[in-house]
Amino acid sequence: MTDCVFCRIAAGEAPATKIYEDDTLCAFLDIRPIARGHTLVIPKRHATELEDLDADLGAQMFRAGHRLALAIRRSSLSADGANLVLNDGTAAFQTVPHVHLHVIPRNHGDKLRFAAGLLLRRPHEPMTTAEAIKGGIAALEAEDEGKSA
Amino acid sequence: MTDCVFCRIAAGEAPATKIYEDDTLCAFLDIRPIARGHTLVIPKRHATELEDLDADLGAQMFRAGHRLALAIRRSSLSADGANLVLNDGTAAFQTVPHVHLHVIPRNHGDKLRFAAGLLLRRPHEPMTTAEAIKGGIAALEAEDEGKSA
Repeated sequence: MTDCVFCRIAAGEAPATKIYEDDTLCAFLDIRPIARGHTLVIPKRHATELEDLDADLGAQMFRAGHRLALAIRRSSLSADGANLVLNDGTAAFQTVPHVHLHVIPRNHGDKLRFAAGLLLRRPHEPMTTAEAIKGGIAALEAEDEGKSA
Repeated sequence: MTDCVFCRIAAGEAPATKIYEDDTLCAFLDIRPIARGHTLVIPKRHATELEDLDADLGAQMFRAGHRLALAIRRSSLSADGANLVLNDGTAAFQTVPHVHLHVIPRNHGDKLRFAAGLLLRRPHEPMTTAEAIKGGIAALEAEDEGKSA
């Protein structure tokens, strides 16, 4: 049993609203979201900082973040963009000592709401939010199938 | 001749203090740095937003950002960490319409300086800063060679 909460989430031993999961990665809603749909992508294998993270695994994590940014635009959240942020090290405001990439949906005209979100960091209906993002991932997959067909 | 300043930097047609360059990517100092050593990594081929960016090329860009984060810790800038930030879309504060990943060196105890940097965004001796980061990249390469020897 590990003390690392993100390792426990990855292993299914701690609760989280998961968005996506494969053998090496896991994505779930931030419990203190800056904006609705604020998601974290983590490698399942523990790495405290980028210093400890395998380069290939890092590239996979960022690739998943890129894909999530495309998915939320296609979701019912109708994001107009996203901030992808990785804070590496406590000096850089990293709070949980397991590498994680933030994907924060943004909309035109949300500056004040975003600023308030930075202060408040309150959840927004996690279940419906997760379903919305999963809908965006499904839409993206359908597009990909359309292209390869 | 393109109007995109980052395409022109990638092509060597506009001035920039370059840190790193290969066939597909280019990294150079932000001319309005939040902190000393604030670097941008861009794909050379134009992509306005993540929506337009090839997934493999994106993974390469993020991989270079990961590596830069390791390099600045080994450089004479002695970074304790970094913020890796990609603002995707004007809704997410993207100002130059060519995908770019920010790598911002951070040090313990720099919170006030970081906050001031967000407001001031003044250059810090670009030539010596670039040399410092290149020294970190060289140190990282020497480590890699030591591991594979």
